[in-house]
Amino acid sequence: MSSKNYYDVTKWNVGNPYEDIGEVINSIIADIKKRQTDSNMNEGGKPGAVIYIPSGDYHLRTQVVIDISYLKIMGSGHGFVSSSIRYNLPENEWADLHEVWPGGSRILVDLSPKPGDEESAGAAFYVERDGNPRISSVEFENFCIDGLHFVDDGSGMPNPENTYTNGKTGIYIGSAQDSFRLTGMGIVYLEHGVTIYHADALSIHDNFIAECGNCIELRGWGQASKITDNLMGAGYKGYSIFAENFGGLLITANNIFPRGTSSVHFRNVARSTITANRFHSFYPGMLVFEGNCSENMVSSNHFLRDNEPWAPMLEYDNGLDDLYGILCISGNNNSVIANHISEIIHTQSIKPAGAKPVIIHIVSGKGNYISDNHIVATTEATDEQTKASDSCFSAQVDALTTTDKLVALDVTAVLVEKESVQNTILDSGSEGQVIIDRTVNAFRATPVPGV
Amino acid sequence: MSSKNYYDVTKWNVGNPYEDIGEVINSIIADIKKRQTDSNMNEGGKPGAVIYIPSGDYHLRTQVVIDISYLKIMGSGHGFVSSSIRYNLPENEWADLHEVWPGGSRILVDLSPKPGDEESAGAAFYVERDGNPRISSVEFENFCIDGLHFVDDGSGMPNPENTYTNGKTGIYIGSAQDSFRLTGMGIVYLEHGVTIYHADALSIHDNFIAECGNCIELRGWGQASKITDNLMGAGYKGYSIFAENFGGLLITANNIFPRGTSSVHFRNVARSTITANRFHSFYPGMLVFEGNCSENMVSSNHFLRDNEPWAPMLEYDNGLDDLYGILCISGNNNSVIANHISEIIHTQSIKPAGAKPVIIHIVSGKGNYISDNHIVATTEATDEQTKASDSCFSAQVDALTTTDKLVALDVTAVLVEKESVQNTILDSGSEGQVIIDRTVNAFRATPVPGV
Amino acid sequence: MSSKNYYDVTKWNVGNPYEDIGEVINSIIADIKKRQTDSNMNEGGKPGAVIYIPSGDYHLRTQVVIDISYLKIMGSGHGFVSSSIRYNLPENEWADLHEVWPGGSRILVDLSPKPGDEESAGAAFYVERDGNPRISSVEFENFCIDGLHFVDDGSGMPNPENTYTNGKTGIYIGSAQDSFRLTGMGIVYLEHGVTIYHADALSIHDNFIAECGNCIELRGWGQASKITDNLMGAGYKGYSIFAENFGGLLITANNIFPRGTSSVHFRNVARSTITANRFHSFYPGMLVFEGNCSENMVSSNHFLRDNEPWAPMLEYDNGLDDLYGILCISGNNNSVIANHISEIIHTQSIKPAGAKPVIIHIVSGKGNYISDNHIVATTEATDEQTKASDSCFSAQVDALTTTDKLVALDVTAVLVEKESVQNTILDSGSEGQVIIDRTVNAFRATPVPGV
Repeated sequence: MSSKNYYDVTKWNVGNPYEDIGEVINSIIADIKKRQTDSNMNEGGKPGAVIYIPSGDYHLRTQVVIDISYLKIMGSGHGFVSSSIRYNLPENEWADLHEVWPGGSRILVDLSPKPGDEESAGAAFYVERDGNPRISSVEFENFCIDGLHFVDDGSGMPNPENTYTNGKTGIYIGSAQDSFRLTGMGIVYLEHGVTIYHADALSIHDNFIAECGNCIELRGWGQASKITDNLMGAGYKGYSIFAENFGGLLITANNIFPRGTSSVHFRNVARSTITANRFHSFYPGMLVFEGNCSENMVSSNHFLRDNEPWAPMLEYDNGLDDLYGILCISGNNNSVIANHISEIIHTQSIKPAGAKPVIIHIVSGKGNYISDNHIVATTEATDEQTKASDSCFSAQVDALTTTDKLVALDVTAVLVEKESVQNTILDSGSEGQVIIDRTVNAFRATPVPGV
Repeated sequence: MSSKNYYDVTKWNVGNPYEDIGEVINSIIADIKKRQTDSNMNEGGKPGAVIYIPSGDYHLRTQVVIDISYLKIMGSGHGFVSSSIRYNLPENEWADLHEVWPGGSRILVDLSPKPGDEESAGAAFYVERDGNPRISSVEFENFCIDGLHFVDDGSGMPNPENTYTNGKTGIYIGSAQDSFRLTGMGIVYLEHGVTIYHADALSIHDNFIAECGNCIELRGWGQASKITDNLMGAGYKGYSIFAENFGGLLITANNIFPRGTSSVHFRNVARSTITANRFHSFYPGMLVFEGNCSENMVSSNHFLRDNEPWAPMLEYDNGLDDLYGILCISGNNNSVIANHISEIIHTQSIKPAGAKPVIIHIVSGKGNYISDNHIVATTEATDEQTKASDSCFSAQVDALTTTDKLVALDVTAVLVEKESVQNTILDSGSEGQVIIDRTVNAFRATPVPGV
Repeated sequence: MSSKNYYDVTKWNVGNPYEDIGEVINSIIADIKKRQTDSNMNEGGKPGAVIYIPSGDYHLRTQVVIDISYLKIMGSGHGFVSSSIRYNLPENEWADLHEVWPGGSRILVDLSPKPGDEESAGAAFYVERDGNPRISSVEFENFCIDGLHFVDDGSGMPNPENTYTNGKTGIYIGSAQDSFRLTGMGIVYLEHGVTIYHADALSIHDNFIAECGNCIELRGWGQASKITDNLMGAGYKGYSIFAENFGGLLITANNIFPRGTSSVHFRNVARSTITANRFHSFYPGMLVFEGNCSENMVSSNHFLRDNEPWAPMLEYDNGLDDLYGILCISGNNNSVIANHISEIIHTQSIKPAGAKPVIIHIVSGKGNYISDNHIVATTEATDEQTKASDSCFSAQVDALTTTDKLVALDVTAVLVEKESVQNTILDSGSEGQVIIDRTVNAFRATPVPGV
């Protein structure tokens, strides 16, 4: 690896990457900028560089600031382990663990943002550049960003490591950018995994982003991007995927597990696509379209909402009740077609008590098209509380695959509020399961067996 | 590459990687364990390492045993070539071949498991660790595992290289694990490509797994994993994808070609998703849900079943007859929505002779929802046997793209057995094409042209 | 990196990679062939090699010719930047740009194909090998191929950099091949991005191919391949994806943005799948099935057609009028299920003037199944021309997310020509929106709100 544009953080001549990889990477970036000064030399001149992070533990005490295009930062391992499970073990069991911490090419985010600081102050990687062109083609690949600890958030949660709060962000992109790539990363125990303003042609592909307060937030506005093939799951009070003022976002092939206040939350997003994903959550509001969300497509997804099975998290949820809807939609001309939606909950967990849960809730707007969705709502015949388990994994597998003791639960398959008109609801619920004003909406009931 | 955590198998000081890469990798793993002993040193301590396999031919005579997290084994090429085509050439033509064997970063699996050995004895890579946490974030990337030969299985098959039997496995994971990744691999000529017990948050993405007895087997139980964007095709008596007791599995964006006794076989799998795949097979039983498979989603897939076109394989199939169903489903509350299913077969190939083939077969369970599937069944007007070809490739392309001499074939689009009730069948077959007890199921026929 | 099979172009002893990387790579390939001569040595012998291109600007003045299997060419960055935006800036603004040219591991294609040359003469990478086996498992990964300039095409376009014409191709594969991979590439400003004849088990995955005359062309014939998870967009007179005589192609999870004379164009393609993509175009004819395209599946896609918002391109389109159809289909037994289609156009832009635009157009063939598609057609209430913008990005975001001033536009949702019969059209348009001969086709109208 003799090229001047290839840097190994363990071989750079400034700083100690194990003590502060931020200082090292910033020094490397300064070197690239010092060497690549001519933006138009022989039809080239600023190709950028790759910074390689070998497997290892690297403390980051200085924020990395990226303001050059074509920088690739890559490691040799996403290094995820469940810190949440570990932090809910008795400390005296830690000595028996094979390993305590995440691994791979691992950045330990040792920043200490203060209350009142800008959110970006807590970012391990901060990208910002004004002027033209937009900063382009920065790539993050196959390393681990570990926020290390959550902290007391004042909520009284007994174990502060369960708060999903620490003011830290993995990657924060503050200015408009083009054709960025995040691939094969592991991102864990950060209040914000990835926060990106003004994205264009962004690819977030094949990452592992879990046990973060929020996983992916696309803010400001943006277009023509994709979030594909990721394994993700946010904390109980954050988003797994959030986007606002976006057009042409493609969310597909993701497996998004609990918790997450929502799996996908759109605010004023248009002409975007959510398809072929698997979503699992413990609360209502799995998919939320807020404000004017229009002409979006939600198809061929599998939604599962069931009850929290893990003892340390039993007390917490996203605060929404069962009348909110598993899917809650505001806006015009959206399509919800060919989805499977399972709601498998204990009757005593329903809020408000005795309410009939709502599955698809059309809150406002017009022209939405809800068709050919299969809604399965059941409860356990014995209706015993799931035995909360200390083992997040075995409890979940058990809950996920237990389907044989279930009896039907009465739900509102589709609720169309009075404020919303000219919608078309087809084959998404039987006569008795859909609440809709037929004088201003179109409705065709799913045929009922034996009728 | 100076980091201590970066190993190149061709530069390690123990063993000869070309003679036995297993010995070399095990020695490297021992070195990692010797160096990384403190599981909680400065909030780190065991980051793992990367083992690089340059392009080359590496015999493996000692099984690799992995019991550390965050190990990444990576090569520089998946190296697939069709060994099946080669083994069915006359040997005197081999001298004219540009190259005889697979390539890239290639492991030649020279293990000799004996009858009666545990299945894992034939595994090139064996992963197992007890205790906590589960072994995490091991990554396999972009190398080739070649089983070299199949052997006489006693069935009397004239060419033992066509038996798909050799007792070898590419990657065998015997204990519960978390967040593993298999990416960009080439896996060929093994009886079992990838066998994984107790998977959580597993990603099998963008691999080439073909000409194996079985491609991917997820055994024991597991959850929240994804099999995405792979090219695959098992032998005539194995699974392309098998899973049991699994919840939340996402199978999407795969192109699964013949043969495979089934493309996807689920046993007691729940709340999983099969969507946006392309499936091609030469036999019935392309998709099988066995036991209690419930609340799964099968949508937006393309199924094609036609006849075997390749001379050496004409005698072999998976033993199922045409009444079994292209999709055969047992379980409750599954969704089969918006799929295209083509069955293009010679009438003289139908078993039992003269039978009316079944496309979607609901065997047991209740509450299944089958809607908006387009079933195309045709046979050639002349009904001549496809001219079996010595060239696997050109014969297949020809068969795949020949659609203009076809006439309609009479089939049962959906067969709902008496044992199965409360199902809903919509727009998936005309009146005469669906066999169903309407007193206990719901049915809406696809409208017929001109009626 | 001591392996003999690992080559760094900056360390090779023949040629200067910065002046002519083609000479260097050809010399490396010759070295591999000189060293790897025995095709059956110890069950191996020709594993191929990896050629690494560090970040940097590399002029290519000699075409790279690849005729060995298992060659991997990889870089450290796809390096895309919008050259189209730059070329439409006043030249005196270039001095203010942070960087002028694409970057990463960047090949500058300095070939000068002459009119009358074979198309392959303008290819940066040319793959061709006769005999057996087919050339296999060549991989292209994570570098940039930049065609640099478009040229005057005689059309009178004021800025020749907008012609999408230069006779150059990024990767041209002329002979049958197996299991090739293109991953993580950036391909820009070439008349043909990727041209591949006779593909089998090809994977084009997670690339950025934009501002090319055509992005991906699969020619001749082929089978069992995938184009997945790419960001793409061709010029106004070329294809984003073209395929002919293909069987079993899977196109999924792509985000294909304008322009492109079509997003996907199939000619005599059968049993292929287009699902879970996001498509955006400024012209009719987004999806074209030409000739005998049969048994293909188009499902769960989002189609958006609106008006060109960018000043430099306002004069150009693909020449098709609004009666052509957003989807235009010839062939038999295709499925178009569960798609969202938005057409948002100014009434004064409609051609022929005053015409009622067609959304899904069935031109010929029989047995096509069009079901459960949600068609949204609107125009701005004020119907003002979109203010054409100098900024491609902000104009597009604005256009993409503006949905609140729209009123319904009268369209023909589905037009089935007389030549086409035995089709089934369900829930894809109301009574008045579908033109169909009901005596020879089946039709069920989407219910209308309030009726």
